[in-house]
Amino acid sequence: MAREDINITPSDRGNMIRVGIIGGSGYTGLELMRILLSHPEVEITAVTSRRFAGRRLGDVFPHLMHLTDLKFEDVSLESISNRADIVFTAVPHTRAMEYVPEILRRGCRVIDLSADYRLNTRVYEKVYGVKHRDPGRRAVYGLCELHPDVRDADLVANPGCYPTGAILAAAPLVRAEVVDRVIFDAKSGISGAGAEPTNTSHFPNLAENIKPYRITTHRHHAEMTQELRELDPARIGFTPHVIPAIRGILTTAHILLRKPVEPDEVEAIFDGFYDDKPFVRVGGIPDLASVRGSNFCDIGFELEEGSDRLVVISAIDNLVKGASGQAVQNMNLMFGLDERMGLMVPGLFP
Amino acid sequence: MAREDINITPSDRGNMIRVGIIGGSGYTGLELMRILLSHPEVEITAVTSRRFAGRRLGDVFPHLMHLTDLKFEDVSLESISNRADIVFTAVPHTRAMEYVPEILRRGCRVIDLSADYRLNTRVYEKVYGVKHRDPGRRAVYGLCELHPDVRDADLVANPGCYPTGAILAAAPLVRAEVVDRVIFDAKSGISGAGAEPTNTSHFPNLAENIKPYRITTHRHHAEMTQELRELDPARIGFTPHVIPAIRGILTTAHILLRKPVEPDEVEAIFDGFYDDKPFVRVGGIPDLASVRGSNFCDIGFELEEGSDRLVVISAIDNLVKGASGQAVQNMNLMFGLDERMGLMVPGLFP
Amino acid sequence: MAREDINITPSDRGNMIRVGIIGGSGYTGLELMRILLSHPEVEITAVTSRRFAGRRLGDVFPHLMHLTDLKFEDVSLESISNRADIVFTAVPHTRAMEYVPEILRRGCRVIDLSADYRLNTRVYEKVYGVKHRDPGRRAVYGLCELHPDVRDADLVANPGCYPTGAILAAAPLVRAEVVDRVIFDAKSGISGAGAEPTNTSHFPNLAENIKPYRITTHRHHAEMTQELRELDPARIGFTPHVIPAIRGILTTAHILLRKPVEPDEVEAIFDGFYDDKPFVRVGGIPDLASVRGSNFCDIGFELEEGSDRLVVISAIDNLVKGASGQAVQNMNLMFGLDERMGLMVPGLFP
Amino acid sequence: MAREDINITPSDRGNMIRVGIIGGSGYTGLELMRILLSHPEVEITAVTSRRFAGRRLGDVFPHLMHLTDLKFEDVSLESISNRADIVFTAVPHTRAMEYVPEILRRGCRVIDLSADYRLNTRVYEKVYGVKHRDPGRRAVYGLCELHPDVRDADLVANPGCYPTGAILAAAPLVRAEVVDRVIFDAKSGISGAGAEPTNTSHFPNLAENIKPYRITTHRHHAEMTQELRELDPARIGFTPHVIPAIRGILTTAHILLRKPVEPDEVEAIFDGFYDDKPFVRVGGIPDLASVRGSNFCDIGFELEEGSDRLVVISAIDNLVKGASGQAVQNMNLMFGLDERMGLMVPGLFP
Repeated sequence: MAREDINITPSDRGNMIRVGIIGGSGYTGLELMRILLSHPEVEITAVTSRRFAGRRLGDVFPHLMHLTDLKFEDVSLESISNRADIVFTAVPHTRAMEYVPEILRRGCRVIDLSADYRLNTRVYEKVYGVKHRDPGRRAVYGLCELHPDVRDADLVANPGCYPTGAILAAAPLVRAEVVDRVIFDAKSGISGAGAEPTNTSHFPNLAENIKPYRITTHRHHAEMTQELRELDPARIGFTPHVIPAIRGILTTAHILLRKPVEPDEVEAIFDGFYDDKPFVRVGGIPDLASVRGSNFCDIGFELEEGSDRLVVISAIDNLVKGASGQAVQNMNLMFGLDERMGLMVPGLFP
Repeated sequence: MAREDINITPSDRGNMIRVGIIGGSGYTGLELMRILLSHPEVEITAVTSRRFAGRRLGDVFPHLMHLTDLKFEDVSLESISNRADIVFTAVPHTRAMEYVPEILRRGCRVIDLSADYRLNTRVYEKVYGVKHRDPGRRAVYGLCELHPDVRDADLVANPGCYPTGAILAAAPLVRAEVVDRVIFDAKSGISGAGAEPTNTSHFPNLAENIKPYRITTHRHHAEMTQELRELDPARIGFTPHVIPAIRGILTTAHILLRKPVEPDEVEAIFDGFYDDKPFVRVGGIPDLASVRGSNFCDIGFELEEGSDRLVVISAIDNLVKGASGQAVQNMNLMFGLDERMGLMVPGLFP
Repeated sequence: MAREDINITPSDRGNMIRVGIIGGSGYTGLELMRILLSHPEVEITAVTSRRFAGRRLGDVFPHLMHLTDLKFEDVSLESISNRADIVFTAVPHTRAMEYVPEILRRGCRVIDLSADYRLNTRVYEKVYGVKHRDPGRRAVYGLCELHPDVRDADLVANPGCYPTGAILAAAPLVRAEVVDRVIFDAKSGISGAGAEPTNTSHFPNLAENIKPYRITTHRHHAEMTQELRELDPARIGFTPHVIPAIRGILTTAHILLRKPVEPDEVEAIFDGFYDDKPFVRVGGIPDLASVRGSNFCDIGFELEEGSDRLVVISAIDNLVKGASGQAVQNMNLMFGLDERMGLMVPGLFP
Repeated sequence: MAREDINITPSDRGNMIRVGIIGGSGYTGLELMRILLSHPEVEITAVTSRRFAGRRLGDVFPHLMHLTDLKFEDVSLESISNRADIVFTAVPHTRAMEYVPEILRRGCRVIDLSADYRLNTRVYEKVYGVKHRDPGRRAVYGLCELHPDVRDADLVANPGCYPTGAILAAAPLVRAEVVDRVIFDAKSGISGAGAEPTNTSHFPNLAENIKPYRITTHRHHAEMTQELRELDPARIGFTPHVIPAIRGILTTAHILLRKPVEPDEVEAIFDGFYDDKPFVRVGGIPDLASVRGSNFCDIGFELEEGSDRLVVISAIDNLVKGASGQAVQNMNLMFGLDERMGLMVPGLFP
């Protein structure tokens, strides 16, 4: 089948892409491992973890037993750069900007999964309240459906999970100039908060519950306003919630229209925009069950009769299309591969 | 303690309120049982269930074992009316209007938990697509925080679960004329869909998921527009979702303001409106864990800086304040009791 | 109804029981609050919490808002003893034995929810690996279905959650001398592990999972062997698991019979043993949904055809019958009240 | 890496294995699709569903959108047999035996995921209470870790989910003749009950709950006694429970030893037995999170000190190693491929 040709035919480039992962014991690092272990053109040469340095991955994370002989190593930028064509930095923000400049200087390309290179320096320092140690560095925002120029980038800033779902839901309509204002009401699984136990991730606090947080002040708002720049930031609202689920973000975009549109116009706008985008699936009412574990973003919409409200729903797996899967999609493009390679896998349904 | 006086001091009225429940085997009927069994002024005299007629409640529903000797009986309006001062009709819409007229004629008061008497006949027939068999009947909409006249009503139309959470979140601001438009993004536990298994309530379909439905067309929209009539219906949006939880509705009300307001103005508006309302608790960020199993509606809010958006969050237990608890609160008022009687119980936390 | 007479008729003892709670911010302390706030004969006079001293309970735990004006206070044994007839110590083991002697000396009775007084000193020191600071103190093991002498006790050692479910399932058969050996395979909600976030309680680790732990070495084994002393400890096996649920323990007791028995014999043994025990309900196949939030222990059984295996299942809410509800039941007996008072409440179903 | 060679190197056999799936809309059929779509040597030529005949898979099951152009077709054994080298029958028991004889006669090999060919005819008719329509047919029980002869089979009876986890946990010890008796206490996700909504799968009934069922009478007991024939059936106990999880079976095997063994003896027994078995991972304490979505069976054990009880725990994904993944593993062996092909994929953690 078509999709198999994609996944298994080895390219004619004789050698595999050598990949290094910095921050291999967090959820995004582990998800990179999960995806790249099945990637036909990749050889993982280094995975770092300060905490688990020296231990085999499968001994620390049993789901990887029998699947790799790799051991976690401590962070040595020199050593990793010598063994990798590309390095994924899956570390907290502020940590990435300590590593990236040297890795680039040593001739490796970088995909940074942190927030450090997603915004221009001025905005970053305002939103994150820290001084940027690598100001002005040029990076491409790695939402490749909007930024095909990731192909030529040495440094890709992988988008945040919420912005991925929100921007993919609204961008086609904003570009089509039919949007007056948008409110993103997002519902996320708790894995987005990371692997460290907190009061929010404490099972008795989250099960049978749903918790809104940073109701009008979430940092990801800045990425949405940057990518939907045709709209005044004050006309882009964002309110996130955590739900009792491990993975997934469902974004309900309440769009107030600038002018009346018909359902088939909306459909035409989405189809035109995502026609050649393999990981965006338009149609039906999305939910998390259909994207769990996969790199797809499912999008559906409904126009309110007798009103100017258009509701667009998007669903992604926050750890795949919202993080590590999108990073691998970017890597494919950066190395001239089919962007689908290693990613055309069905979600885990049920 | 004060609240105990409420619950346990028997009133001087010599006799108990005799209660009949029609539709005792659905979730709202069972919840009425759960609450009324602890009510100091109530004697339950009849509980009907076509399906389980003749069987003891505790044999069909083990959680009631050792707590009552009652048996389900078939529906006989005459027999029930003779044994009850008030009848709760906990049946699907269209069924209630078959029963209510005769029960009233026989001199019983009625609290209807269905949708049959919540809307004026014309709107009801349009929204529910059926002919009303008891048109023009006067009923009081049983959101007693807005309708103190439930006290004198013979027929109370108990509000829908979504409208309860949405209206309590927005009404004070709408009445204060600061609201230009509101979008209710609601997240509900699945018990609101009833006790019958469906594809939506199938565990593999709902666990680890969240599903939007009737995205712009939910019938409860009509109750919201009726109670928030100061706003044009087209300026009231409502989109419901089911979440993987049994109980609770969290409503995120995205309010676009007609004019700038300060946080303390908003607080003053809510405090003034709910000052003497024992079951509305204003302050903090609400979640479902704090209201699970209780009759409280928790409300919190946040103003977006540099924008005209005010986010109000409300949390209720859909089966208690959203249905049976609110019905008992109405009963208390109808019979001149303290509205708190039998209801001042903490939620089941954790 | 009978059960209401129980709950609401104030006794003729003019005064309420004054209750102090040491350790009011943990799950068992909060559960004591939840239950005692509805108890007709109790006045809560003091609730301690080092961490939250000075703050109102409702400000720290929103589910208690509007229900009590109490403030957490720091631990002063003198002050509490002066204001209480009975003190509940809801603190970790080793902490309780620091408090109990002085509270008793000051003339208060005590129900200790920790493990400190459940075992004889020698066994305790072996199992918990610490020196007992109050050795040899006489306490009654507060499983009142087996120990009616709690009535006369000044110090009651409230049973562990697992032992409560396990012992109630097996004791009648062990006493009837039909048991050769028993293996308790227990499944518990995570609230039993307490309010502090851990890797085990981290939602992504527990949801969609089940985790066995302390597979053959759980400390509660010692309580089971003490209360089922007719059996050699080596013939009592216990393996606990945590399941993705907040509350409840389901215990599957695999009993190997010493001699053949008929189903009606087993039924007769249970009925005879629990005939006059209001909180043990025998019959049907138990599950957690029927006991959630209630003080009941539901028990059912099935004999394997052609084998000597009898499977007994018990279900409790670990925080109620497994902890705080059982403690209140003991308090009722210690003060000459009906043991059901304040506890005959249906579970939260659904 | 080694495992990639396995997955992607196309074999020298010029042509792909042509696969037909009968019963493609149930959970095991969908899981076969999920796995086979990534299998480098397979071409899926036919998928049947009476209910959805004529519709594209991706239109009925959105998680398959963009991944296949296949349409469901009605069942025509002739047509399917002409287009397939092997047919998977993923249908309810009694249905399979209607199809299998003709498919075999037409020269296709068959892997039956139903129970129809797992037991000898006499036992089958007794356990399932129906007359077998294809009595005496020779099939190999497809637990290939015990039955390497699946290689040469034309008909493989794929094992039940519970037996897979139970037998893999106990067989090495039973064969080593150290087992006197075993009690399997199994906990299963609800997907094992299928895609049709029932009272058991109704979210409010299963969430926050755990339900034992067929406590001593589950049909899978017959498979366990057949494969552990060294033990008297009366000495093999099996009690299943459903837990609030979608996927996975954790089996707690309480083994009573015939003679004392040391931990390293047990380890040696397991290592010797599973040394060359890529999908059985021995060591650590298994849980469902590490096998979710993968074909691995994780096994761990603990010896009880001072007792003759050995507890062995196994964890599998009921839909993968417990059904469709094991079926693909069998297919690989039947066609002379590396048994790991298409299956060496990490579980979906978290």
